[in-house]
Amino acid sequence: MSRPKPTEYAEASPQVRAVFDDIKRNRNVADVNNFWKYLANDPALLKRTWESVRDVMAEGALSPLVKELLYVAVSVTNGCGYCIASHTASARRAGMTDAMFGELMAVVGMANETNRLANGYRVPIDEAFGS
Amino acid sequence: MSRPKPTEYAEASPQVRAVFDDIKRNRNVADVNNFWKYLANDPALLKRTWESVRDVMAEGALSPLVKELLYVAVSVTNGCGYCIASHTASARRAGMTDAMFGELMAVVGMANETNRLANGYRVPIDEAFGS
Amino acid sequence: MSRPKPTEYAEASPQVRAVFDDIKRNRNVADVNNFWKYLANDPALLKRTWESVRDVMAEGALSPLVKELLYVAVSVTNGCGYCIASHTASARRAGMTDAMFGELMAVVGMANETNRLANGYRVPIDEAFGS
Amino acid sequence: MSRPKPTEYAEASPQVRAVFDDIKRNRNVADVNNFWKYLANDPALLKRTWESVRDVMAEGALSPLVKELLYVAVSVTNGCGYCIASHTASARRAGMTDAMFGELMAVVGMANETNRLANGYRVPIDEAFGS
Amino acid sequence: MSRPKPTEYAEASPQVRAVFDDIKRNRNVADVNNFWKYLANDPALLKRTWESVRDVMAEGALSPLVKELLYVAVSVTNGCGYCIASHTASARRAGMTDAMFGELMAVVGMANETNRLANGYRVPIDEAFGS
Amino acid sequence: MSRPKPTEYAEASPQVRAVFDDIKRNRNVADVNNFWKYLANDPALLKRTWESVRDVMAEGALSPLVKELLYVAVSVTNGCGYCIASHTASARRAGMTDAMFGELMAVVGMANETNRLANGYRVPIDEAFGS
Repeated sequence: MSRPKPTEYAEASPQVRAVFDDIKRNRNVADVNNFWKYLANDPALLKRTWESVRDVMAEGALSPLVKELLYVAVSVTNGCGYCIASHTASARRAGMTDAMFGELMAVVGMANETNRLANGYRVPIDEAFGS
Repeated sequence: MSRPKPTEYAEASPQVRAVFDDIKRNRNVADVNNFWKYLANDPALLKRTWESVRDVMAEGALSPLVKELLYVAVSVTNGCGYCIASHTASARRAGMTDAMFGELMAVVGMANETNRLANGYRVPIDEAFGS
Repeated sequence: MSRPKPTEYAEASPQVRAVFDDIKRNRNVADVNNFWKYLANDPALLKRTWESVRDVMAEGALSPLVKELLYVAVSVTNGCGYCIASHTASARRAGMTDAMFGELMAVVGMANETNRLANGYRVPIDEAFGS
Repeated sequence: MSRPKPTEYAEASPQVRAVFDDIKRNRNVADVNNFWKYLANDPALLKRTWESVRDVMAEGALSPLVKELLYVAVSVTNGCGYCIASHTASARRAGMTDAMFGELMAVVGMANETNRLANGYRVPIDEAFGS
Repeated sequence: MSRPKPTEYAEASPQVRAVFDDIKRNRNVADVNNFWKYLANDPALLKRTWESVRDVMAEGALSPLVKELLYVAVSVTNGCGYCIASHTASARRAGMTDAMFGELMAVVGMANETNRLANGYRVPIDEAFGS
Repeated sequence: MSRPKPTEYAEASPQVRAVFDDIKRNRNVADVNNFWKYLANDPALLKRTWESVRDVMAEGALSPLVKELLYVAVSVTNGCGYCIASHTASARRAGMTDAMFGELMAVVGMANETNRLANGYRVPIDEAFGS
């Protein structure tokens, strides 16, 4: 069978359960998302990815909300359906309002447009930008 | 000659000058960036793009700083060299610190990684996300 | 009707059948995948694409297994759902184990992350790389 | 040395020269572009790629000009610097005017924007489109 | 609820209805596509996007048919499912025949291939292209 | 100044030097590549990225050579100039021959082409692939 399968908590190894437990504690949720259940096919990848996500998305110089908005911006640009759905939900939980979502979409759309205008017009980098 | 040429203010039509003037006033700069000088090849595109950028990037539910961070996130994901240089500079002017830049890069890198993990593991969207 | 339709063997022209026959013989399968049934809308494209795929994916300096892994890496990076599904299946048939799939995903995720870090930090190419 | 080197006509094998000759005849040029000189590192790839490009870009239901515009649209979307430069030049030779170039850029920019709006708003495909 | 919802005409604000009316008049259709119903979550984005699309896609130096082909080329390159479906339908309405669609796909596929060959072989831009 | 600067060993903090030392030991090189000198702007990112790269790229179910080929495939697809240059060099050191490089390019080009044909023809996933 070529399609990966999710791993549910009840059938997980102790190593996988430890990661699932940390996710549930950290996010205060009853169960982990499908993303983690699928990564559990590779316990080392699951552990490394979760620890990176946990550390990178934590409060820092940027707030968790801003970080979730950035995540959505990347996911929308790449067209990753799962990631758009899951990180839009995360952004909502972190405080994203309807107005913020609308502005996020407007900026992402605009940036994708002007990226191509810069490419197509072959605009040289201004010296002031440290070309 | 196939390569587009920039339009300098001195040689610009009144229609292009009006846009350049609005950019300079709005951003309080002595001259416009190369991007606008190249778009000036198509005065209608120049005008529409500037007006959209001006309105979309203005203070709203999201701050100009957050919007510039989003712009950089999209540009880095797409690999647009000009846009990375120009919007990193804009983000700096809007208040981005070194620490913010570091976290921005970490989130953008991570999101590009997990986007592909979600693709490759073919993770179905959780019902809770409004699949 | 705007959506392309598949062409089944029974209704195919002799030109299309000749390609389908070559695919079935070459891959030792009873029927061709949907991909070929849709390309059959354009018999010249079908023939050229099949002949290129057949030649490019054959045993050479790289094994068919390595070539299928490369195909999956590209498809995951581009987010092509059909291609991820079909070439993961092909890689399995060519000998990809669960452990190989896990490492493939880890490398693809990592490469997509570091590609963006290199973009965002605007890293100049080392002279040693033949910049 | 890791960087591929170009193959000049004077040093090329008979197999490579045959392809270069066909390109020069077909395009009525004195020398081939760098693209072909680099592909000549792999004579089979050179031959297959040239024959496909020659056949695909020929007059058909779409004109060579429209095909060059499409090539530029893809190259700008992907941010391929070489391809943007070479196919903008080809499009010019095929008759692209300044006004056409301006409209091409406007459409490509717009499409890249609305692609992301459709992704981000998670718009379901209308039944009328053959969802 | 994190998933955006469509706005139907009956429940739309006067500002949104005005845009919907202009779309229906301009395209001579009884109802607007889902894309517009979702953008209606942000009336300012809806208005700006529609006015840009309307102006950019109108008859000019390039015909509406050529512009729709370009739109499909970008959408296929980006893998935007909604946009491929909607703009293939628009292209059909603007006169795209089966033969044109086949050639469009062949050019888009080829350009995506040669873009990567140029990247991978690190081909320097010919001086003749205004490098 | 908006452009990130590299950190040389002589000026590096003990934390950064420890990572540089591990890279030099692990790869048996006299100095680290520019990539690491730029990531050193963010010591935590430097450490996490290096440890992930070191572990992910090590001998496993896939060889270091195959992993470098996969890295190049992703980098070429994304058009990351730095990554193409550095990982082509790494692949050479890991044993990539000219013939392997040629086949790698052919597969990557082909996969990028057929990804778009699958998108454009809207090919549904075969049930046999675990749709």
